[in-house]
Amino acid sequence: MSSCLSPSEIITLTTDFGTSDLYVGVMKGVILNINPRAQIVDITHAIPPQDLNAAAFLIDSAYRYFPPGTVHVVVVDPGVGSERHPIACQTETAFFVCPDNGILTRILRDASHTSAVTIENPDYCLPRISNTFHGRDIFAPVAAHLSRGVPIEDLGTPVATPVRLPIPTPHVTEEAITGHVIWIDHFGNLITNISHELLKSIEGQNGFVIQVGGVAINRLNHSYAESAVGEVLAIIGSFGRLEISINQGNAALTLGVKRNDSITIRPA
Amino acid sequence: MSSCLSPSEIITLTTDFGTSDLYVGVMKGVILNINPRAQIVDITHAIPPQDLNAAAFLIDSAYRYFPPGTVHVVVVDPGVGSERHPIACQTETAFFVCPDNGILTRILRDASHTSAVTIENPDYCLPRISNTFHGRDIFAPVAAHLSRGVPIEDLGTPVATPVRLPIPTPHVTEEAITGHVIWIDHFGNLITNISHELLKSIEGQNGFVIQVGGVAINRLNHSYAESAVGEVLAIIGSFGRLEISINQGNAALTLGVKRNDSITIRPA
Amino acid sequence: MSSCLSPSEIITLTTDFGTSDLYVGVMKGVILNINPRAQIVDITHAIPPQDLNAAAFLIDSAYRYFPPGTVHVVVVDPGVGSERHPIACQTETAFFVCPDNGILTRILRDASHTSAVTIENPDYCLPRISNTFHGRDIFAPVAAHLSRGVPIEDLGTPVATPVRLPIPTPHVTEEAITGHVIWIDHFGNLITNISHELLKSIEGQNGFVIQVGGVAINRLNHSYAESAVGEVLAIIGSFGRLEISINQGNAALTLGVKRNDSITIRPA
Repeated sequence: MSSCLSPSEIITLTTDFGTSDLYVGVMKGVILNINPRAQIVDITHAIPPQDLNAAAFLIDSAYRYFPPGTVHVVVVDPGVGSERHPIACQTETAFFVCPDNGILTRILRDASHTSAVTIENPDYCLPRISNTFHGRDIFAPVAAHLSRGVPIEDLGTPVATPVRLPIPTPHVTEEAITGHVIWIDHFGNLITNISHELLKSIEGQNGFVIQVGGVAINRLNHSYAESAVGEVLAIIGSFGRLEISINQGNAALTLGVKRNDSITIRPA
Repeated sequence: MSSCLSPSEIITLTTDFGTSDLYVGVMKGVILNINPRAQIVDITHAIPPQDLNAAAFLIDSAYRYFPPGTVHVVVVDPGVGSERHPIACQTETAFFVCPDNGILTRILRDASHTSAVTIENPDYCLPRISNTFHGRDIFAPVAAHLSRGVPIEDLGTPVATPVRLPIPTPHVTEEAITGHVIWIDHFGNLITNISHELLKSIEGQNGFVIQVGGVAINRLNHSYAESAVGEVLAIIGSFGRLEISINQGNAALTLGVKRNDSITIRPA
Repeated sequence: MSSCLSPSEIITLTTDFGTSDLYVGVMKGVILNINPRAQIVDITHAIPPQDLNAAAFLIDSAYRYFPPGTVHVVVVDPGVGSERHPIACQTETAFFVCPDNGILTRILRDASHTSAVTIENPDYCLPRISNTFHGRDIFAPVAAHLSRGVPIEDLGTPVATPVRLPIPTPHVTEEAITGHVIWIDHFGNLITNISHELLKSIEGQNGFVIQVGGVAINRLNHSYAESAVGEVLAIIGSFGRLEISINQGNAALTLGVKRNDSITIRPA
C-alpha cells in the first residue's frame, strides 16, 4: 500500500528533551549502532515539555525542506509507557516515527497517500523497553531500521486513523479576522496562524489595522530594516504567515504577548 | 596489551563548555582536519562547570549505547595546564580520552580489561599546546588519531591507577535505605542512586514508603500517565534507577529538591 | 581570479538563530538536499541577536581550525530583505557565505588573496526567496553548491570592497594600555583584545598591574589551578589573548564586568 519511497539515510530528531542530559546523545548512539551511515540532524530539542501543539507545528514547518526519504523522529510523549501506541507513518515524501498522540496532525491533514502502522515488531526495537524512554528503546531503533530500507509494513499492523489534535484556525467574519500567536521564536517574533492570503482578503480601501498586544499596525513591511530600530512592525515571515516583530528588538517581551494570545485584523 | 578493538570512526563529546562559544566547534574542526570521515556526536556540553561527578555519571550512563570502538572525549577539566595528566583509556568496547581527574571512575569500576596511558607523544597533539584548552590541543586530536586506528600504546606510557573519585552509594540498614539524588534532568525528574533491586530488597508486607523533599510516596508507577497530571510519583527510570517525577510537571522545582539531596526508603 | 581551493564538503554554521526554533534544522535540510555528502558542523547559534561584532570575532577565531576548503556560513543579518547584499568570499584556505555587513571584517583584514562576489545567480538559491530568512533561501543553498565545487565566480559579480566594521583596538601610551573585553565565555572568562606580545611590551621593572572590574592583578598565571579556588587571575588564553578568570568561578558575574568594558594595564 505504501509507495516505494527510498530512504535517504538522513534522520532528524525533534523532541522536548533539551540538550543538558544524555537522552539525545544516547538516541544517536542507538541509531548509529543500527545504521552507522545515518546522517542525524537535530531540528530542535527545545519543544516546551509535553507541548504536542508546538511539536506538531514545528515538524510540519520543517520536514518539507529535507530530502525525500528522510526519517523524522518526533518525541514529545507525555503518555510514554501507557496505552498510547508508538507509530510509524509514511507520506509520499517522508517517514515519521513518533507516539500516536497527535504530533502528526498537521502533516496528515495536508499529505496525500499516507500509511501508518503501530510499531509492534520487537525485532526493530531494543531488547528491553523501558516505560519512560521510548525515544531510545523504540523510536531511535525503528528510525534507523527505516533508514536502512525496512518497509513500514514490517513494523506492525496498519493504523487507520492516527490521533489528531484540534488545530487552532482563525475566526473570520466580514468585519474581522481573529487569529492566534502559534509560536514565538528565539528573536521574540510572534508567528501567527494568519496566512498572507487571508490577510489580503480583509483589506479595505485603506488597507487594514492589525491589533496585538495593545498596539495597532496598519502596514505590512517588506523587510525589518524598513522600520526604525525598536519599532513594532508586521511582516510576512519565512513560512508565509503574518508575523509581528520589532526591528532589532524582541516583540514578545516588549509587547508582553504570549503564545496562544489573539491577534485581530480589521479592514481600514 | 590492549585488546584488538577496532575504532568505529564515531567520536562523542561530553564537556562543560556550553554551546554559546566557539570551543566545541573548534574541537570538531580539529578532529575533521585529522579524520575527515569521523562522525562526531555531542552527548552534552551542559555539564555544570567543573562538576566531575556529573560528568562521571553521564558518560558512564551514555557510552554503552554507542557502537563498539567509539571514541569518547570527556572534558571537564578544572586542572587544565597544571600537573594533572591527559590520558587515553581503552576498555573491551570503547576508547576514552580525558584528563586524569576521576571522570572515568564509574567506567573503570565496571569495565574489565582496561588499559590506560598518559598522553605524552606530541605527534598526536596540536603543535602548540595552550594552558587553558586541552580539549582543542590534546583531546580532540588524540581522539581523531584513535578513530583512525592509532593504538593507545603509541600515545604514551601506561598509567597503572587512573585517579578515582568516591562514588556516593546508598546507606543501607534493615530499617532504611538512604540514597541521593545524583542527577536532575531537563524535565525536573530526580534520578537517584537507588537501583530497582535495592528498592525491592527493603519491601515490607505493605511495600515501602519513599520520603523525599517533604513528601511520602508508597507505590511505584509503571508509567507517568498512571498518576494524575501534577501528582508526585516514583518510577524506575530508563537507566534502571528509582526516579521521582511529577506527571507533566517538574519535580525538582515543585519539591525544592537539589542534586545530592537525600532520599529515604523504609519498609511499610 | 580565485585560486584553485578545493572544497572539503565540510560546512560550518555560525548564527544568532538560537536552537529552540526550526531555523537551523531547516538550513541543514536545504544543504543536504543539494549535497547529501556535506558534513555540517555548528560553531555556535548563540551569537547575541544582531551582534555583528561578536559574529566577526567568533568566526575569525574559529575558522582556522577547520580543514582547508571548508565553507563557513555566517548569518547575523539585521538587514535581511533590505538593500544589503548577500556575498560569498574565498580566501586561500576557506569559503565564507554571509550578508555583506561587516561579519568578515577580521578575516579580510588578515587574509591575503581574497575574492568576493555578490550572490545574484538564482540557480544557486531556493526558487522563492523570503524577506526574512536568507539563511534558508540563499546562504544554505549557496554553501551547499560551493561544497560541491561550484566556483564563486558563478554566483555573481565581484565585490571590490566588502563592508568593514571598526575593530576596537587597545589604546597604547607609555604609561598605560587600555583595552576592552571583547567576549565573555560560558565560564564567565573575560577575553580581552590585548595580545600576549602587547602585554609584555608594557612590563616595568616590577612587572605590571592589570585593573579591571575594581580589582588589580599583578601577575600572569600559567594555569587556573595555580590560584586558589575563587581567586581572580590573569592568564593568556587559548587564542593568545589576555583573559581574566576566577579559578572554578565566574569572573564576569563576580566582578560585574560586561562585554566592551575596559581593562587597563600599567607598568609596575
